[in-house]
Amino acid sequence: MATAITSRSQDYSQWYNDLILKGGLADYSAVRGCMVIKPYGFALWENIRDVLDRMFKETGHQNAYFPLFVPKSLFEAEEKNAEGFAKECAVVTHYRLKSDPSKPGSLMVDPEAKLEEELVVRPTSEAIIWNTYKDWIQSYRDLPILVNQWANVVRWEMRTRLFLRTAEFLWQEGHTAHATSEEAVEETRKMLDVYATFVEEYMALPVIKGVKSESERFAGAVDTYCIEALMQDGKALQAGTSHFLGQNFAKAFDVKYLSKENKLEYVWATSWGVSTRLIGALVMAHSDDDGLVLPPRIAPLQVVIIPIYKNDEQKALIDEKVLPVVKELKSRGISVKYDDNNNNRPGWKFNEYEMKGVPVRLAIGVRDLENNVVEMARRDTKEKATVSLDGIEDTITNLLEEIQQSMFQKARDYRDAHITKADNWEAFVDLLENKGGFVAAHWDGTPETEALIKEKTKATIRCIPLDQEQETGVCILTGKPSSGRVLFAQAY
Amino acid sequence: MATAITSRSQDYSQWYNDLILKGGLADYSAVRGCMVIKPYGFALWENIRDVLDRMFKETGHQNAYFPLFVPKSLFEAEEKNAEGFAKECAVVTHYRLKSDPSKPGSLMVDPEAKLEEELVVRPTSEAIIWNTYKDWIQSYRDLPILVNQWANVVRWEMRTRLFLRTAEFLWQEGHTAHATSEEAVEETRKMLDVYATFVEEYMALPVIKGVKSESERFAGAVDTYCIEALMQDGKALQAGTSHFLGQNFAKAFDVKYLSKENKLEYVWATSWGVSTRLIGALVMAHSDDDGLVLPPRIAPLQVVIIPIYKNDEQKALIDEKVLPVVKELKSRGISVKYDDNNNNRPGWKFNEYEMKGVPVRLAIGVRDLENNVVEMARRDTKEKATVSLDGIEDTITNLLEEIQQSMFQKARDYRDAHITKADNWEAFVDLLENKGGFVAAHWDGTPETEALIKEKTKATIRCIPLDQEQETGVCILTGKPSSGRVLFAQAY
Repeated sequence: MATAITSRSQDYSQWYNDLILKGGLADYSAVRGCMVIKPYGFALWENIRDVLDRMFKETGHQNAYFPLFVPKSLFEAEEKNAEGFAKECAVVTHYRLKSDPSKPGSLMVDPEAKLEEELVVRPTSEAIIWNTYKDWIQSYRDLPILVNQWANVVRWEMRTRLFLRTAEFLWQEGHTAHATSEEAVEETRKMLDVYATFVEEYMALPVIKGVKSESERFAGAVDTYCIEALMQDGKALQAGTSHFLGQNFAKAFDVKYLSKENKLEYVWATSWGVSTRLIGALVMAHSDDDGLVLPPRIAPLQVVIIPIYKNDEQKALIDEKVLPVVKELKSRGISVKYDDNNNNRPGWKFNEYEMKGVPVRLAIGVRDLENNVVEMARRDTKEKATVSLDGIEDTITNLLEEIQQSMFQKARDYRDAHITKADNWEAFVDLLENKGGFVAAHWDGTPETEALIKEKTKATIRCIPLDQEQETGVCILTGKPSSGRVLFAQAY
Repeated sequence: MATAITSRSQDYSQWYNDLILKGGLADYSAVRGCMVIKPYGFALWENIRDVLDRMFKETGHQNAYFPLFVPKSLFEAEEKNAEGFAKECAVVTHYRLKSDPSKPGSLMVDPEAKLEEELVVRPTSEAIIWNTYKDWIQSYRDLPILVNQWANVVRWEMRTRLFLRTAEFLWQEGHTAHATSEEAVEETRKMLDVYATFVEEYMALPVIKGVKSESERFAGAVDTYCIEALMQDGKALQAGTSHFLGQNFAKAFDVKYLSKENKLEYVWATSWGVSTRLIGALVMAHSDDDGLVLPPRIAPLQVVIIPIYKNDEQKALIDEKVLPVVKELKSRGISVKYDDNNNNRPGWKFNEYEMKGVPVRLAIGVRDLENNVVEMARRDTKEKATVSLDGIEDTITNLLEEIQQSMFQKARDYRDAHITKADNWEAFVDLLENKGGFVAAHWDGTPETEALIKEKTKATIRCIPLDQEQETGVCILTGKPSSGRVLFAQAY
């Protein structure tokens, strides 16, 4: 099983696909660019969703649900947003099929069931939501509105990759409405922090918080904040975005409120989202040539226990010892499986759970019982140890926490070692070609230079980091003055 | 606020709409037939979803996610299923918009971006899922597959009603694959039981379990099992269905497995679902002319506490007593709100929470504090009592449970009083016209007679109940022999 994975050094991209498919996370589907999220992959998404949902609620947000379809006239109301998404919209034009008279047993679109107005399958929901908020907001008393939606969206991508870029994907999109610009900016930053906390503490993936340059900004936003992570091949991946939308959507949909001072004012907006793309990031950041490596706090299965026995008598002895351990671990909220399935041999199981990235594996035989020990293996470092069965529940609990911290530390060390300053064009190109990672360089602040750099190197400005020392300099390409370094990288 | 609701006797249908809109459950949207589920309505759906999801997992099911779109060629593969849903399909025909040269600022469907094959927005997912199962199933070892999906689906309805019948709705759809017919039938019945248990124990709504007649069967099913509930206007509502699909989809998608006996066999299937329609049932079954009445186990907010005071000093005294109670209730997992918002008067709050169906309301003033009591009101019966503050947490906990039981009992009494036998046509018509509810009558078993009865009375066969005494008789319309009574009703 494990031998069937392409190694990272051989073909990073194929290695990634192998992990997704053989790890049981997702499958290709019959629909171009759409994937099937398999139970193991969906369990991962459920864990991500449940933690984020709790964090959203703790910060005062409520969930709601808005229509899948956006009438074309609403879709085009906010011009920049429409322009940004028009090229990748799935469009519903008809509402009925009928028997195809030329092909018995076949159906055809019924030309008489053409919609008067086409419906866009939402690529994002600002338009339909702000058209609704118009009815919800009259006075300052109706503000803020702090709403989130868990939903599917569709963006017709020409080149797709499982989890990273699919035509349909699952995400959450927060859409908030505020009385003042300050409050909206504060919300934008707060949700960026929620994302950063989640990705670092649960996914064990360090991120850089920053703001996008104009050309990488969300269509319709005044400012796009983002968290950027680094993958093992030195490419960056945008893991989440939080947008300050100014009054753009309020103006497009005429959403005003009566202020305390009795004046009609346009409402201020934010939107923010993360998607199933996070699973792609998780896989690429931590996994190795033997399979997935999942951080304990988000792993669908945290511990697997494999009995090694020759007959029912031995099995009964092992059961007697293991079942209370399983029970105690479960009562601690630890997800554990005692895999005593007789159809598969222990070696097969070892490979299988290694492939699936289960953080801790125990193997126990009768000899171990006699010695009151168990073999404990951790997935991240592949270290094995023989540990006492006394207090094994505490040993496991502590190891899970240690793995979580250690995975984060390893990813952070790698990331930190891959943020490099470049002060001239040659160094910049050399770093991108031979080292990868983020290159911190001066840029003259124009979209033209940014585009030129992208054309020459495939690197884009990932973000202007929020936390960095102030420093002036000159643009690596044009030599024009720069007010601070920005982070360039090739990216997913 | 409450005075603005239309009464049931005046206009039942308008009463229902008033409750949904003024109770803050949902709103109409800009998309024909689609609704916006507002935060309070969505919280109700989250509660329903969370309980059901736990029940599905306890019965061995896992969640997964399949594409929103079904290519037309797959959609039409199972002929009866396709025929059943063809007339209500939203169809994606294009994947891009472009600027409309004739109207500046407007977009139009790009004729050059026409899909080679049209995509149906899933009205149900058997086709796309069984096309996937083909790749997942080789041998009996791969069976059973017990998968569920929480998703949105679209059925283009001409006459829509909030929650009860909308073009897009949220639901779950279980899709299982089995080696034998017996196992699949057992699964079908098991999930019907799960639904019945959920609706009765959590939604406080008694149901009748039964099987559908041929003409009411799910398109593509061998048998459709259902749970039927009764609304306050005497109309029935189908609250959930569980289908035994036989080998219909396995044959349409060529899904075979190698049996233990080394023979290739077609796989057996089930599917089962409940939707946001359940919220419509909940509203119509329990509410009254003053607003929603929600059963405690599913209510987003179970207890509200309203302080009554004239100044900050009084407020401080009330806070001191109430805050520990709130904390204790929360620690018991009870959802409680201490509404000390100064902007609204107590009377307004009383109406508001009555409208929203919050099961228990406490009101407390300084005089109550002196007497160590609080006024406790229950929403279902509107009874008020002055109760001691000593052990108030237990009093509340017990009352919530009492309300749950009492609501179920009331709904069951009503339902039981509205199952009436009719042994001739006149009695049958009279019951439907003047009493409503279920009419248990003999029927000759033919779709023709069923259609004729529907045409004459608008009543359909809701189900052939699973639990009923065996009794032969003659059809109320044709006088032909009947092997048992079936339940007729007018229905939503």
